[in-house]
Amino acid sequence: MWTSDQNRTMAAQARKAFQDYYPDDVAHCYGCGRLNERGHQLKSYWDGDATVARFTPLPYHTAIPGYVYGGLIASLIDCHGTGTAAAAAARAAGQDLSGDPGGSVEAPRFVTASLRVDYLRPTPLGPELEIRGVVKEVTERKVVVEATLSAEAEVTARATVIAVRMPESMIEPGSS
Amino acid sequence: MWTSDQNRTMAAQARKAFQDYYPDDVAHCYGCGRLNERGHQLKSYWDGDATVARFTPLPYHTAIPGYVYGGLIASLIDCHGTGTAAAAAARAAGQDLSGDPGGSVEAPRFVTASLRVDYLRPTPLGPELEIRGVVKEVTERKVVVEATLSAEAEVTARATVIAVRMPESMIEPGSS
Repeated sequence: MWTSDQNRTMAAQARKAFQDYYPDDVAHCYGCGRLNERGHQLKSYWDGDATVARFTPLPYHTAIPGYVYGGLIASLIDCHGTGTAAAAAARAAGQDLSGDPGGSVEAPRFVTASLRVDYLRPTPLGPELEIRGVVKEVTERKVVVEATLSAEAEVTARATVIAVRMPESMIEPGSS
Repeated sequence: MWTSDQNRTMAAQARKAFQDYYPDDVAHCYGCGRLNERGHQLKSYWDGDATVARFTPLPYHTAIPGYVYGGLIASLIDCHGTGTAAAAAARAAGQDLSGDPGGSVEAPRFVTASLRVDYLRPTPLGPELEIRGVVKEVTERKVVVEATLSAEAEVTARATVIAVRMPESMIEPGSS
């Protein structure tokens, strides 16, 4: 039986994730914010030139019984896409979002402009899911990420995330 | 202050939704299943030839503070899309998913083949969201739905959902 606590404990034991570099005032995302106690707290990492995140859905994240609901799949891909965009933009600027464990590096924050998910086959509910990203394009303003989601080494969804740098105007005064 | 109970009470007071016509063994979706006690229980209805659903996010459904996270927006559009597909397919077969309140009509169940969401502007967190669907194509196997999501009468996301009839093989024996 899985629990939210278990997902979080596993994440906490791992090395520092892209999302751990988000400044406090933009670290509340339900999908991946380390400061959202109710959320999924997705954690993304470099794996060579690709990126990877892992997440075990909870028993009630159902579509048709036995399968993961598509909204969660879209959410995980979305947050892994914006995390990958942050890491790619940081790398392009000479910063490494897998180093500096106790330091002062802060990730640039990206938001999603467009998300496309093709659901290739049903995703079984139970196994840990693996979300992988490949950076296809990096400009000052925009990063394009292609992603897959797999269960038990079988790709069940393919996606493209177009992420854009967060407008400064999105940060509320005093929101941190 | 919003609560899950409040969303559900409002839904229960309304007329029968598309999702209320799903057979019990396929009514557990986290996004829209009436039998998923932990889920969003989205409810979709005809509004003339368009379809509509309304949902008030909870305070922790945050992206950047003050805004709704993109994964929830994708989820709501996804479930409204498959619900609209069910209603459109039923209508094409001469059945009405807004009538028969106590009767035996069952909705055909569709699953998502492809979801594309364009996030046009940040969606404010707080107001009730309105998701609207327009049926663009109906075949025996596939329904294409174009959707918008709005907050305070401003469209913040546009989407296309390609829904396909659920393969019978997805239903687990004894899953109800």
